[in-house]
Amino acid sequence: MNLQELVARRDRVFGVGAPLFYETPVHLVRGEGVWVHDTDGRRYLDMYNNVPVVGHANARVAEAVATQMGTLQTHSRYLHEGIVTYAERLLDLHADHIESVVFACTGTEANEIAMLTARAVTGGDGFICTDATYHGHSALVGSLTRAPHRGRPGVHAFPFPQRLRPIETGLGDGELAERYLAEVRRAIDDFAAAGVGFAGMVICSLLANEGLPDVPAGVLARAGDMVRAAGGVVIADEVQSGFCRSGRWWGYEAVGLEPDLVTMGKPMGNGFPLAACAGRRELIEQFRARSRYFNTFGASPVHAAAGMAVLDELEQRGLREQVNDVGPYLAAQVRAVAGRHRSVGDVRDRGLFVAIEMVADGPGADPDRDRAVAVVNRLKDKGVLVSNAGAFGNVVKVRPPLVFERSHADYFLERFADTMAELT
Amino acid sequence: MNLQELVARRDRVFGVGAPLFYETPVHLVRGEGVWVHDTDGRRYLDMYNNVPVVGHANARVAEAVATQMGTLQTHSRYLHEGIVTYAERLLDLHADHIESVVFACTGTEANEIAMLTARAVTGGDGFICTDATYHGHSALVGSLTRAPHRGRPGVHAFPFPQRLRPIETGLGDGELAERYLAEVRRAIDDFAAAGVGFAGMVICSLLANEGLPDVPAGVLARAGDMVRAAGGVVIADEVQSGFCRSGRWWGYEAVGLEPDLVTMGKPMGNGFPLAACAGRRELIEQFRARSRYFNTFGASPVHAAAGMAVLDELEQRGLREQVNDVGPYLAAQVRAVAGRHRSVGDVRDRGLFVAIEMVADGPGADPDRDRAVAVVNRLKDKGVLVSNAGAFGNVVKVRPPLVFERSHADYFLERFADTMAELT
Repeated sequence: MNLQELVARRDRVFGVGAPLFYETPVHLVRGEGVWVHDTDGRRYLDMYNNVPVVGHANARVAEAVATQMGTLQTHSRYLHEGIVTYAERLLDLHADHIESVVFACTGTEANEIAMLTARAVTGGDGFICTDATYHGHSALVGSLTRAPHRGRPGVHAFPFPQRLRPIETGLGDGELAERYLAEVRRAIDDFAAAGVGFAGMVICSLLANEGLPDVPAGVLARAGDMVRAAGGVVIADEVQSGFCRSGRWWGYEAVGLEPDLVTMGKPMGNGFPLAACAGRRELIEQFRARSRYFNTFGASPVHAAAGMAVLDELEQRGLREQVNDVGPYLAAQVRAVAGRHRSVGDVRDRGLFVAIEMVADGPGADPDRDRAVAVVNRLKDKGVLVSNAGAFGNVVKVRPPLVFERSHADYFLERFADTMAELT
Repeated sequence: MNLQELVARRDRVFGVGAPLFYETPVHLVRGEGVWVHDTDGRRYLDMYNNVPVVGHANARVAEAVATQMGTLQTHSRYLHEGIVTYAERLLDLHADHIESVVFACTGTEANEIAMLTARAVTGGDGFICTDATYHGHSALVGSLTRAPHRGRPGVHAFPFPQRLRPIETGLGDGELAERYLAEVRRAIDDFAAAGVGFAGMVICSLLANEGLPDVPAGVLARAGDMVRAAGGVVIADEVQSGFCRSGRWWGYEAVGLEPDLVTMGKPMGNGFPLAACAGRRELIEQFRARSRYFNTFGASPVHAAAGMAVLDELEQRGLREQVNDVGPYLAAQVRAVAGRHRSVGDVRDRGLFVAIEMVADGPGADPDRDRAVAVVNRLKDKGVLVSNAGAFGNVVKVRPPLVFERSHADYFLERFADTMAELT
């Protein structure tokens, strides 16, 4: 199948505008562990996808799903022990106060549940979030996407906290934290001024879409306390941050945030559509009483089987420990390469997640999206899949499956070094 | 595992309030075709679930999912021929003007896409729907749920058309249709009066949640024309009506409605979370341009594999033809039993979907929800799974997997006759 021909067929049946990665798209046919293969038999090291967290084509997950689909797949209005056992095991991995869970199929649905819960509990409609975030694609959850500071009903965005391009220069770390917290404060207070009830904050614990910024110490934890003190609900979006990505089970542990609700998705079923919103039991029960929520495919026997197989793999293969070994190794090597190139303004890392921030030459750290796109496309040509992200699209986002090993880091680094040498 | 113990564990991890069927819940462990089995080895004839449309534990679907999950599961920002081929095949089953498709995971997501598309295309926010409908659980889609005639922002409900309890008595069929259409007209016009732009109509082609009412001839088709003439988008929700349920591929064909957008879900993946919104290409492209929609689990290789296996089963086993044989057979027998009991006010059917409407004794046709609940629970005790639904909860909803045969109908009818004899 000719690539152009397939793109033309795709444009017709999807309609033009369905996003595709890379200047020349990749046509994948097969995956295994951290590797994916295209129609020409070329292999690529996958350093972008966190859905196949326990590896592409993971045999244990595929078998668990197949066995359960060949036994029983039904919905949660019938009793099934599997999903209850999975819920218990999942909740045990969380902080003690995260007691109950609502299952859904996508991160969007999980965040929708969380926001509707916050609305139900507080009676308010006003949410705060950062100004460069993304939490999903429904009307409600999508209202947070790259929200302006004011001007959308029910949403006040605050500048995402960072040290690279701080809201105010020349401040010490403690002062800088105070400046960001003043913005959070203002976002909350402006709802009262507008007569809108405050519902809470939705935040990705690692600020992944913002570009994994280096946050002044204590900002997130104190923002959470501030939200709660104002009567709001703290929602930690763990769709990208969760399931050992950070080296802890949950991003909120890594950054010291105490959430009332946590949402989970992407890696949860290693590609089976599985997501959840968990939290304090009284909050979840208020949501259930209000909504009588039912999700046809949520909390199903196959949800349990897929989710359980992923937890088994993470635990039995010691992948959290592996993250804490390989992540810092990778980051240190990236820094060594980056140090030779002024076009890299910053390298940040958390667990097995590295952000390489491309900047323009000259003083300041002006974001250089074009260069990030060039790095991404060059790396693809050399057999490595990453993408660009961040508030300015200039961050090379490195977020491989957790089965990624030191030898894979070495494979990447050689190609990354070549790419940087060619481009600068 | 003791039932009460499992319910207590479930209440703790789900929070109290997660809906369960039946006075004494059923704990299912295994399914096969139209049968499901509980922990005690009891078997039940499933006459409620339309998700396992090609049968519980369908081997072809389980194998297709397993093979693809063991090969590659990724997302739509990489090219994959499978999902394009599946989209082509799915669209070929629709009316010619249904040209392009957006894949998602749940019916709620599909309806959310449809409503956001209607908003994008029309610039309006106002939707009309019936006053006893349900299309999903997000904030936007949930705003349609059992909406009052006025009083929710962006939603005007009209009385669902029916002959059993008509909006006005003593009218001929043509006059009755005009009365309902006047209500649709008013719902549309009231948006203009309120200065709200009109976006369109969301309607289940078979009015399944309303209780499969007997609609005066031509109402739905003419309501659709009226919506389009007013600049709105006609959205046919085929989540329950689609995939041969009605004896046609799509409910909109069965009732003569011409939709601009159709949404699909439940049976589409036989239990794999797969849903879609399809429609005129220019509408889908406007949605894509506006939203840059991306669904992590949508339009994936496993979506294609599951969806394709379901189409293979439907076609190769001749299940649409089977529906057109078994459905009328079942309905005729139900009518024969029902004719002996004044508590059955009406029996309606469409394809393999039968609605048995329970009413109070005496003149009029006052809905008797309690009796419907009693029928549902008695039937369960006798080994048959159905549920109650409809605008008043008094309709026994009979909607089995499509692999349901005449012999299954006979099995049901014996138990239905006994149940009715016991209860009256």
